[in-house]
Amino acid sequence: MKLAFIGSGNMGLPMARNLLRAGHQVTVYNRTRKHAEPLVQDGASLVDSAADAVCDAAAVITMLADDAAVEEAAQSFQPPLARGAIHVSMSTISVACAKRLAGQHAGRGQFYVAAPVFGRPVAAAAAQLWIVAAGPAEQIEKCRPVFDVLGRGLSVVGPDPWLANVIKLSGNFLIAAALESLGEAFALVRKSGGDAGQFLEIVNHALFNSKLYANYGGAVAQSHFEPAGFKLHLGFKDLRLAQEAAETAAVPMPLGGVLRDRFLAALARGEGDLDWSALARIASLHAGL
Amino acid sequence: MKLAFIGSGNMGLPMARNLLRAGHQVTVYNRTRKHAEPLVQDGASLVDSAADAVCDAAAVITMLADDAAVEEAAQSFQPPLARGAIHVSMSTISVACAKRLAGQHAGRGQFYVAAPVFGRPVAAAAAQLWIVAAGPAEQIEKCRPVFDVLGRGLSVVGPDPWLANVIKLSGNFLIAAALESLGEAFALVRKSGGDAGQFLEIVNHALFNSKLYANYGGAVAQSHFEPAGFKLHLGFKDLRLAQEAAETAAVPMPLGGVLRDRFLAALARGEGDLDWSALARIASLHAGL
Amino acid sequence: MKLAFIGSGNMGLPMARNLLRAGHQVTVYNRTRKHAEPLVQDGASLVDSAADAVCDAAAVITMLADDAAVEEAAQSFQPPLARGAIHVSMSTISVACAKRLAGQHAGRGQFYVAAPVFGRPVAAAAAQLWIVAAGPAEQIEKCRPVFDVLGRGLSVVGPDPWLANVIKLSGNFLIAAALESLGEAFALVRKSGGDAGQFLEIVNHALFNSKLYANYGGAVAQSHFEPAGFKLHLGFKDLRLAQEAAETAAVPMPLGGVLRDRFLAALARGEGDLDWSALARIASLHAGL
Amino acid sequence: MKLAFIGSGNMGLPMARNLLRAGHQVTVYNRTRKHAEPLVQDGASLVDSAADAVCDAAAVITMLADDAAVEEAAQSFQPPLARGAIHVSMSTISVACAKRLAGQHAGRGQFYVAAPVFGRPVAAAAAQLWIVAAGPAEQIEKCRPVFDVLGRGLSVVGPDPWLANVIKLSGNFLIAAALESLGEAFALVRKSGGDAGQFLEIVNHALFNSKLYANYGGAVAQSHFEPAGFKLHLGFKDLRLAQEAAETAAVPMPLGGVLRDRFLAALARGEGDLDWSALARIASLHAGL
Repeated sequence: MKLAFIGSGNMGLPMARNLLRAGHQVTVYNRTRKHAEPLVQDGASLVDSAADAVCDAAAVITMLADDAAVEEAAQSFQPPLARGAIHVSMSTISVACAKRLAGQHAGRGQFYVAAPVFGRPVAAAAAQLWIVAAGPAEQIEKCRPVFDVLGRGLSVVGPDPWLANVIKLSGNFLIAAALESLGEAFALVRKSGGDAGQFLEIVNHALFNSKLYANYGGAVAQSHFEPAGFKLHLGFKDLRLAQEAAETAAVPMPLGGVLRDRFLAALARGEGDLDWSALARIASLHAGL
Repeated sequence: MKLAFIGSGNMGLPMARNLLRAGHQVTVYNRTRKHAEPLVQDGASLVDSAADAVCDAAAVITMLADDAAVEEAAQSFQPPLARGAIHVSMSTISVACAKRLAGQHAGRGQFYVAAPVFGRPVAAAAAQLWIVAAGPAEQIEKCRPVFDVLGRGLSVVGPDPWLANVIKLSGNFLIAAALESLGEAFALVRKSGGDAGQFLEIVNHALFNSKLYANYGGAVAQSHFEPAGFKLHLGFKDLRLAQEAAETAAVPMPLGGVLRDRFLAALARGEGDLDWSALARIASLHAGL
Repeated sequence: MKLAFIGSGNMGLPMARNLLRAGHQVTVYNRTRKHAEPLVQDGASLVDSAADAVCDAAAVITMLADDAAVEEAAQSFQPPLARGAIHVSMSTISVACAKRLAGQHAGRGQFYVAAPVFGRPVAAAAAQLWIVAAGPAEQIEKCRPVFDVLGRGLSVVGPDPWLANVIKLSGNFLIAAALESLGEAFALVRKSGGDAGQFLEIVNHALFNSKLYANYGGAVAQSHFEPAGFKLHLGFKDLRLAQEAAETAAVPMPLGGVLRDRFLAALARGEGDLDWSALARIASLHAGL
Repeated sequence: MKLAFIGSGNMGLPMARNLLRAGHQVTVYNRTRKHAEPLVQDGASLVDSAADAVCDAAAVITMLADDAAVEEAAQSFQPPLARGAIHVSMSTISVACAKRLAGQHAGRGQFYVAAPVFGRPVAAAAAQLWIVAAGPAEQIEKCRPVFDVLGRGLSVVGPDPWLANVIKLSGNFLIAAALESLGEAFALVRKSGGDAGQFLEIVNHALFNSKLYANYGGAVAQSHFEPAGFKLHLGFKDLRLAQEAAETAAVPMPLGGVLRDRFLAALARGEGDLDWSALARIASLHAGL
């Protein structure tokens, strides 16, 4: 499958590499060309604009930082992109943005598939992402070989692309909620004379039995927030997008409000570049620890 | 080991049975004698008062509904209980109550070991409880054969008995927080056109990989709240005890406040006897679903 | 009217003095006798027990710190108090405590009138309290001459004494909520480059036109929390009583949860003896100011 | 002073009328021309575009619904507006929008004064608005005759225009917080057997002594939400703008989060066109009343 790949950052680079190694023909564009250069040895063609990348591509994959970056890229490649070609939008973007993009592509006889992923750069490199895809069923099927190369699992959630974004954002909301709950429980245990690490071990053995709790909880128990696997300011961005989606759907989410304040308290402390699990430390700080 | 066992309710009955079947000599007292009678065929001696139960017991285990029940029982057996004997307090009670009991027993030359458990009646029957013990190390060691019979795991958290209660209450707080986070996410997904069950499957595969999320989340996704594994009004009791502990330790817990309001909203709807996972439905109701 | 007055603290002392100066015959008991001595020159008889105070009194007024103090006093004077005499309970106590006391007095053929007050010691001295009374209408009428001496206003809210306590606690809840709202707005204005004092002046001129906003807001804007007009730890006590009442009535109160956390954050900073308006400073602290 | 006035809605119409009656020469533009026609009899010149309105005006006043409307208008009149002329922006808009507009005008040698108002249409008609102005001091002075005609008070808060918007939004936040606190207290009082109206009277006499509490509280106590003085969906818009400002300044505002959820719960019930005091009813609904 002839592919264009826009965005070779922390996530995009290993994803593009996996596609190349699996034998796909991939033309890559990244705003900072240097970051894409390591892909040349895997067979990538580098180009100097998003428009150049999509010429004669059956699908263009975007893996960029935020709404603005994806919309800017789409603006520049929508005309050259062929009728019938697919924009596979894998970034974590807003529901509103996904709706706009889907509409624009439809207007040009192109397809739009939303396919955000769960997983950090390490998982991207190991082809262990979990992909949540939504859009026209036939187009998703066409992309399946791509998804198979990139991840360990694929969930197809329906024909409305933006639903995939709702699910990605809601998943991140669940992680943030788990982080905050651990943060509050740790504060209580510690101020009561206990050890957060031992408490974590107990509840994970007795209750959750989840690597996610073990890994994130361990980081919080040890205040180990650097290097960041996922930066706190990006986590805040995702929370805001979840809140925007909740606003559109008129869904009160009180935990969302609590999380928002934790993020803001962390940002007020200048901690935006720490791992987002640092939001769980705020509970201890506010308890005077 | 010669044991007294006070309380043969949903949890106490299977626990006492396991002790009997493991060869321990157990004298049982339950306020409603009838509930204890099935234990006779396993070799239990039934008596008509807590005081009668503890005569010549090396340890007395209490497994009762709440602070009041444990304190009432302790009041009646503290004098007959021998010096050097151990009160193994396995109920989920308050930190304050644990402190009072520990003090009273110490004043009589008796020992107090707190050993609350994680696990529901099914786990109690299968000897799959997870026991969190705190108190004098030597006394906990003496109780180890008892704990080995009752559970699949034992965590010893230190010499202060009440710390075990803090940990038990904090663990339940984590579950309630996970429930609420699922409830809010489900409301968002559903009002955005998605399916809660599919969302749960995705996030559990992609993120948590936890039976607890699968089981509780499944119950919430299907609004399956009867029969109750753990009744909502008891879950509320535990949350209040966690809040009391947080008050004593001066720990702000905003998620605790959110959970409190969810419990109260459910109680205002007359749902105290449903399974406590029903608190996660409130998010959907308040979103107009 | 022959009166017994139990409790001559910050509030009770000026209240008893006003009653004496208005010509009432008042026998006073205070646990620390010395604090009651200034009342002798106004004509008070001092006695050494609550029981001694109530002999041949038509009504006994209690003005004490909390539930425990009122219950202890009532325990000791209920037998000597005459049948048909009235216990006028003016302290800020819990709804549950008011229910218990009303029941006990009824059982002895005595009357119980709840009459908590709005107003600080300065208002008590100036006879400017606002009294909220509930209980048997006839008995409240008998007490009217007393209330007229003590306050500038009387609201009778019905036959159930504890309703007066609900109203007192709910009033304090409104003040605390106003404090917190000012605290959050001040944090926003200040971090945006504005002046909290000027903002307060504007909103009070334009919107509230309320001395309470001016006075409390001014204290917060200037971080002027000493000497305490009403100590933060007492404000927290009242909030907890409001939350208890909300629990009994199954009323979710999310602002109550926010306030609880603010109080705990202040207590964790060791600020329990500051004026309770100090809870409004937490918003600024958590914003990094 | 030769003025252009853009926007003759509920607020703009009476404001423009007051200016005309005070002898100012006013050219008016409104998207729906018909709504502006009543002003002709007061001497207004009507024109068919914002650009036409500003020709040879010393100042152009905008009083429009939201950011988008003000930005669209400004886009169309910025070129014709003379160098040295003033854009007096009286709408309730976002801080970010105020910053953008200030920058654009500065780039053209024009001035930007933010002058949002406290007050509803009735107050606008009675020239009883309270105006909060920010911008270059000299330009504000030039506008003073205009402000004197429109309002009963003027507060000048500094040279940065957007600070006036922060103050306006923070003021509305305080009102919303007071509404919610009344809503929660009413729910508690009512479920405890009391009357919300009587409670309101008591606390307003005893504590707040504020017409705002009396008026809004009365509306809530009687569930009197139509006709809307200020629609709930507009109140939500303002809350979101306050939250955006809080986000920019990194200020956690937990009451803001609670209010957001109340607005969303009301919107989920289809109550966006009720008066915004209807948000205070949610507390009662969630308590099962």
